[in-house]
Order: sequence, then C-alpha cells, then structure tokens
Amino acid sequence: MKKNVVYAQSGGVTSVINASAYGVIRSSFLASNIENVYISINGINGIINEHLMNMKDLPEKEIELLKYTPSSAFGSCRRKIESNNDPILTNIFEIFKKYNIGYFFYNGGNDSMDTANKIAEFAKSTGYDLKVMGIPKTVDNDLPHTDHTPGFGSAAKYLSTSILEGSIDVKSMAKDSTKVFVLETMGRHAGWLAASTAMANINNNFGPHVILLPEISFKKDKFLSKINDAINDDGYCSIAVSEGIKYPDGKFISDLGYKDNFGNKQLGYAGKVISDLIHNELKLKVHTAIPDYLQRSGRHLSSLTDVNEAIIAGEKAVEFATNGISGYMVSFERVSNSPYQIEYKLAPLSKIANETKYLPKDFITTDGLYVTDKFLEYCKPLINGEYYPPFKNGVPDYLKLKIYQ
Amino acid sequence: MKKNVVYAQSGGVTSVINASAYGVIRSSFLASNIENVYISINGINGIINEHLMNMKDLPEKEIELLKYTPSSAFGSCRRKIESNNDPILTNIFEIFKKYNIGYFFYNGGNDSMDTANKIAEFAKSTGYDLKVMGIPKTVDNDLPHTDHTPGFGSAAKYLSTSILEGSIDVKSMAKDSTKVFVLETMGRHAGWLAASTAMANINNNFGPHVILLPEISFKKDKFLSKINDAINDDGYCSIAVSEGIKYPDGKFISDLGYKDNFGNKQLGYAGKVISDLIHNELKLKVHTAIPDYLQRSGRHLSSLTDVNEAIIAGEKAVEFATNGISGYMVSFERVSNSPYQIEYKLAPLSKIANETKYLPKDFITTDGLYVTDKFLEYCKPLINGEYYPPFKNGVPDYLKLKIYQ
Repeated sequence: MKKNVVYAQSGGVTSVINASAYGVIRSSFLASNIENVYISINGINGIINEHLMNMKDLPEKEIELLKYTPSSAFGSCRRKIESNNDPILTNIFEIFKKYNIGYFFYNGGNDSMDTANKIAEFAKSTGYDLKVMGIPKTVDNDLPHTDHTPGFGSAAKYLSTSILEGSIDVKSMAKDSTKVFVLETMGRHAGWLAASTAMANINNNFGPHVILLPEISFKKDKFLSKINDAINDDGYCSIAVSEGIKYPDGKFISDLGYKDNFGNKQLGYAGKVISDLIHNELKLKVHTAIPDYLQRSGRHLSSLTDVNEAIIAGEKAVEFATNGISGYMVSFERVSNSPYQIEYKLAPLSKIANETKYLPKDFITTDGLYVTDKFLEYCKPLINGEYYPPFKNGVPDYLKLKIYQ
Repeated sequence: MKKNVVYAQSGGVTSVINASAYGVIRSSFLASNIENVYISINGINGIINEHLMNMKDLPEKEIELLKYTPSSAFGSCRRKIESNNDPILTNIFEIFKKYNIGYFFYNGGNDSMDTANKIAEFAKSTGYDLKVMGIPKTVDNDLPHTDHTPGFGSAAKYLSTSILEGSIDVKSMAKDSTKVFVLETMGRHAGWLAASTAMANINNNFGPHVILLPEISFKKDKFLSKINDAINDDGYCSIAVSEGIKYPDGKFISDLGYKDNFGNKQLGYAGKVISDLIHNELKLKVHTAIPDYLQRSGRHLSSLTDVNEAIIAGEKAVEFATNGISGYMVSFERVSNSPYQIEYKLAPLSKIANETKYLPKDFITTDGLYVTDKFLEYCKPLINGEYYPPFKNGVPDYLKLKIYQ
C-alpha cells in the first residue's frame, strides 16, 4: 500500500540543503511505494501546524530551481523535542496518521538528528509504521560518523575564495597602508571552516598565513610573533579566525558578556577582537571581514561536488527508507581520494545526536596555527568544481515559494 | 619617434582594475608610436624606486590572466604629491627621461587623479613632452564628471547577490530564531554601494527592506519603526548600512574614537553599532555581515559589463594619448539605457581631483530609507552579466607576478 512522505529542514541552513530536498522529491516521485510528498514549512513546526505543501502542486520549473536556491526554501526551525514524553510527539503523530505518512525525512545537524531519533523511537514504541531517515547538513562539518557533511564543501569554497581575494587585496595595499587582513569564519566548536581557508594557498600562496582554530587555545605572543614573521617575509599578513576560539582558561575570545533571548551566550566579532589586538599591540592598520550568513548561503559559489552529493544524500534517504530501513542518517564514507570516491552508508541517529567531530590532531600543524597537508588532501575534492545558479537582471534567480512568503 | 609608456595603479583596489591594465597593455602593443610598456610597482613609488617591469617580459598567458585577477596585480599606493613643488616630481621626471617615457597612465580615484594632474602640469611647466591620462577606478562610484566608474558594477553585483543570499537565510531562521540581518557596505561619503543592494529585490523581493545611506542623517526612531513594519509584513528584516552613516550632528556612527597611524579617523563596524542598537532596543536576535575587502576584490562575481568597460577604459586612454590628448581622465557618458549604451569621453583631471559625487536626491526615497526606481534603472545595466575567472583546484586561478612577490 502506498504511503506519503514528510520532508522538513531544521537548524542553521546551507547553500545546498534544497538540493537534498530536490533529491528527496525526485526519488519519491519515482518510488512505487510513495504516493505524495509533503514538505513541512519551518521544520517540525509545519507538521504540528498542518502547514504542509504537496509537491505535486509545485511547478516543474520551481522544483528544478531548488537545486540552485540557498538557505531553506521551506523555512527552518530551532525547535527541539525535549524528551520521549514531550507532548509534541503526540501532536506530530496525529498529523502523520491524518496524512497517511509512512516516511519522515529530516534534513539537519546534531539537534535535528536528535529530533529524528525521538520521532523514530516514538513510532517504534507506539507501533506506528514509520520509516525515519536523517539527511545530514551543516556548514560546520562537525557531525560524527560521516566523512563530511553536505554544505561544508560549498562554505569552504566560499571562504577559501574569499580569503584568497582579501589576501591579494591587502598585499596590494601593504606597502604604505593596511598590512593585515583578518577573516572571521563560522565554527563555534570545531575548526573545519577556518581550516578550509588554507585551500586559498593551493595555487599561488597569497594567504592565509595564520589560522586560529577553536581546537587550539589562543596564545597571544605566539600569534603576534607569527604575524611579524609573515610581514617580514611577504610584506603583509592574512589571517583566518574561527568565531569559536578560546583563551587558555576556556573563555570565548568573542564573549560579548550577555545572553540572547533564548539564554544562549552571545558570541560575536572574534574577528574584531583579534583585529583590535593586532592594531593595539603591533600598531598596524588592519582590515576585517566577517561574512557571517554569506558563507553558508553563498550559493553563487557552491562546490559542484557538494551540490551533487547533497542531491544524492536526499535520493539515498528515499532509497533506504523505501527498502524498510529506519532510524539512521545517510552517511558518507570516503573510499578513495584520487580519484575521489564516496560510498553512502548508514549511521544510527542515536549516535549522531550529541557528539561533535573536531579537527583531528594530524590535521593541525605542531605550532597550532595552520593545517597539515593531510587536511588539504581531505578538503580538496570537497570544494572541487563550480555549479553556478541562473542569473536574471544581474543577480541570481532564486526560488520564492508562494506558500512561504 | 616611438616613446615608452608607464602605467601604475593607486588607491583602494577593485576587482577589475587589472582589466584596465590589460586594456592599456594590449592597445599599447598595437600602437605605432609606442615602443615599451613599463608597469610601475606600487603606484608612483615604483617610478621613484625604478621598480618597473617591461610588459614584453610578461608571458602571454599571464597578460591574459590580468583580465581575471582582482585587486592590484602590481601593487597600489596611498602616496600623494603634496604640491607642484614637491621634490618627488623632479625624481619622477628624471626616471621618465631615463626610460624615454612619453605616456603616463594613472589608474585610480580622486587622489590619484590629483597626482596625475600634478604630473601633467609639471610636464607642461618644464616643457617635457608627456601625455598623461587618468583611468577611473573606484568601487565607491563617487568620481564626478562620469556616469559611473569601473569597479562599482562588480562590487554592486557582489553586494546585491550577498544581501539576497543573506536575506533568504534570515527568512529561513526568522520563525523562532534570528529575525534581522544587517550587511555593512563600503562608501564612506557616498551611498552608491549601499544603494546598490536594492538590486537584490529586482527578481523576488527577498530584501533588503531598509538602506542606510551616508547622505541621510541617521534617525533612530524612524529606522526602528521601519524594522518593525518589515517584521510585521514579512516576518524578518534585512538591512544594508553604509560604513559612513552619520548622526544628525554629523558624527560618524562608527567612529571608534581613535586615529590610525596616518592620522585618519578610524571608522569601523557601523554594522555592529546598528546591530547592537536593534538587539538592545527591539530585543531581537540579529546577524551581521561585514564583507569589507571582499566586496571590492570579489572577482569571482564580477559584472560582465564592468569587466568589459574596464578593459575599454584602458584602451581608450591609450587611444586618446597617442592622438595627442593629455591632462584628462577617460569618462563615461550614458547615451541610452535600453539598450544600454556608453560613450567614452574626456574629463579634465583638475576637475576630478577634489570633488565627490553623492547620490542625487531623486535616487533616494522621500523617507530616506530606500532608493527609487530611477536608481534601479541607473544601476541595472552596470551589474549585468557574469564573467567568471578560471578555477584550479576548486579556487580561482589568479595571477601572481614574479616581480611582485
């Protein structure tokens, strides 16, 4: 008997998350045991509020545009399921029954996999026949039990291109003006994105000269001394700094000293803190770029590898689920580096939920201020290739859904 | 009798300044009255230091790469000529004589045109036969006596694409997390770059909702009220803010309260000041992007129109000079908007030097917080078309000159 699909997106977005939606929709349309594909607006909130959209109603051309549209085309959410007794679970399954849902695909990071896991467990404990699959997504690349995560490669391509361009700029100006360029990257806990900026050096070594990672305690003197070395050698210094770097006492360097409305410690402007330090201690003129959202939504510069893998991750989720598998996230296993080759595997949702994958030690140089060739080898295929969106009137032509305006 | 050329770059860079260098080099190679083309390293400093590079020594492939390489491939400078008696002028002309220089092309903004003008006047007063042409360049688009300036269109394309992507991102998150996105743009005195972000709305109206221009005094209450309107209408608010916005008393909002080593007032983080204000007054979660150098060196997203016009500006400078014209900057006159058509004219260097072109009143809406359709009509052709650089190993393959390492 045919059943229906619910697909939803959750957590911080990426430039290729809708490519995974595209994979889910296309594969579901072809699957003999699937009737309708519903997209939930704003993550699991859309299920509870019955804010669902049947993909049969979406014109073919708009489905194609999903491949090119960054961020969450259907809205994301930060909502968590608190426990296995959270009343929200009952609400969700009422809607699942009403819509004859047999498949639930949740596209997100750690927190989202925890949500998917709780939904899978609730189904099992109540005897509701539901196949649950997680589809990974996070620019931070910090999900465990997978070689990497869709979204990372594109953000890495954006950041390495950006620091390359910023480094050429500061090199131009360094003779009698600005000598230091600082680029702040995302990555509160793990340094994958900051590390990825080293890819900018792969062709012509314009920079970065220094990479500050959250895995390594910030030591001022060593850092300033490396800046002086770079300026002596090249006349300028280019620096990538992760938003999550900490002092040796564990305090975030960018701790603004207040919490947001949700009780989270507000971090911000690690790049500014570092720049002010350089300006004050070395009496140098510094320029600072903080791309923030731009690095995770910069679909105009996504990696071809990343877009394709995001699509396949969606397709694989449908393939696994329609073959009866439930309670897993689609994971990536690297079979070979050259030629680059990936196999799509399964990682139990319960194992993803509360674990962070940090940069391994052998990806960081012994001075703690740069990355090793082993990291470059790891990162290189992930940023490979271009897959430009269509442009209209000089700017990208991204999809805006009528239901979600 | 054949003479030689000196070409140099000066001031803040753009993503297409080397495309103008390309135009100068190519046209000079074809000109019957030009023998050698010397590029001066780091602006006029390279003349004084005899740090010159004969373009005959640059491989064909590297000359082609100039079209794609952002920032100053030969180094820029901030050096000014203080007066018509500045001893530096004597130094410069000694080198001009030594190298049989008959043509001087200076590629820059206001200050650089002042330098070019002083060199032209010195030649005239000493009877040295020199043709001087200015080639315009500035992302700020604030040079007078020209419809627009090479570099602006690409920075505008970068910024409008960036705020489009950032707006889709914050829209995704707004339901239960961040509701406001702020993008800081360059433009200390004139609001052209901040204004250009409105191009992001041309296809699908994702944002920006508010644009803060340096031409308009910042009024807090009006601004906060427009944010509330946007959130009521769309659930989120996207804001572009120029680094140069001021309070009604004329004080820069981003005045950091100290001067840099060169005695210039240090401005920074207008985006942060605005974000903190919104966070504190409206109790909303805000994300802030500060692209800084990335907007002016983002060659991966340059406008096709802009690259082509930058090349032609270089070619025209050579054409005018070899026809005996001196003391002018190549200027742009818009003949028609659709089809978009430009004629290349001459603007006296003396008139460019110390004048700033602000956004005209009819380009700004009556509430002072957005731009008019007339501005969009002006800006649209300038960001049109894509002209991607070659990529190698996942990042752009930009030129690094051996002489300038």
